[in-house]
Parts: sequence; structure tokens; C-alpha cells
Amino acid sequence: MSQFDNVTVQTKANVYFDGKVTSRTVVFADGTKKTLGIMLPGEYEFGTDTKEIMEIQAGELKVLLPGSGEWLQINGTGEFTVPANAKFKLEIKTVTDYICSYVAE
Amino acid sequence: MSQFDNVTVQTKANVYFDGKVTSRTVVFADGTKKTLGIMLPGEYEFGTDTKEIMEIQAGELKVLLPGSGEWLQINGTGEFTVPANAKFKLEIKTVTDYICSYVAE
Repeated sequence: MSQFDNVTVQTKANVYFDGKVTSRTVVFADGTKKTLGIMLPGEYEFGTDTKEIMEIQAGELKVLLPGSGEWLQINGTGEFTVPANAKFKLEIKTVTDYICSYVAE
Repeated sequence: MSQFDNVTVQTKANVYFDGKVTSRTVVFADGTKKTLGIMLPGEYEFGTDTKEIMEIQAGELKVLLPGSGEWLQINGTGEFTVPANAKFKLEIKTVTDYICSYVAE
């Protein structure tokens, strides 16, 4: 089973959209941060502060990346990157389990 | 902010009830295990293998413990203990953020 070792986990959840999107913050020894999150079916728009790499561990969803006119489809696993200070849209079809990495540039 | 240090986190979520209850497994250096979880509004029944200590970090809910005829009400924060190999019922009123500790006996 995939796991993160020697990390710090914040006990309180990050809660968005009435709990339909939630995540847990994990901080690594080098100070970098990831969140482990769940998105339930629905449509959401998010904004980034830093660049974000979204790794989909499970789920069926569509993603509209900033500046794109085309929805990206992910069924099962996948990955996409969102630049800093940008907005992106998600259409979640089934319960989606993700890892979001925040990348300082 | 409260946090768990020097732990291992499994990257894949535990998903129950179509994602209305999800959790992340955290393993401590001494081998003990906790889950950090979210429950969305609804009614659920769970069964235990080991003794479980449920710490509610946020939420409004009612709990029916095994052998009890009375629902316990929690608004905000609270804690209850469920014995091993038992069933308990939950009525979740608002998004509930919990820490579950699994206690070997």
C-alpha cells in the first residue's frame, strides 16, 4: 500500500462546499505540503495560490484547466497540473480520491 | 494547530456509504493506528473489531452506543468509546470531523 512516511498530519480537516470536498494536510520533512482529499459528485471551481499537481487515485471526473476550452476526462487514475494564481473547474461523477501537491516556484 | 508528528499516512482513502463517510489511516511510531475521518449528514451503523475511541473535532450528531437505549448528543466537540466487536449507530446532522483511535486490549 502506498504511504507517506515520517510526515506531520494536521488533525483538523479542510472542508469546502458543505463537506462535499474535504482534505487533510500532510507536511513533509523538507517542509513541502500535500493534501489528501475526497470530492463527492458535483461541480466545483477552485483557485490556486501556488502551482498544484493533482494526482487522481480513483474517480471519474472532468477537468477544465485555465485557458483551456476542452474538458479533460479522467476515469480511474490520472494527473493534471494547475499553474499558480489560476482557477479551474471540476465535474465530479463518482467519489474521487486525490493527492494534491503544492509546488513553490 | 493540532497535529500528529512523525507518522505514516496511507495515501488511499477508506470510503464507506458512497463516500458520505471517508477516512485516512495514520500509523504511529509505536505501531498504533488512528483514522482521521469525515462524516456527511445521514444515518449510519458501524461495527468495531477493536475498541474504538471516537473524538469529535467538529459536528452535530447523535450516537447510540451498544446496549444503550439513549442517544448521546454531541454539538461541537465530544468523545465516546465503543467496545470491541460491537455495533453503534450515528445520526449525523452537520459535517463531522473525527479522530478514531483503535485500542488493542
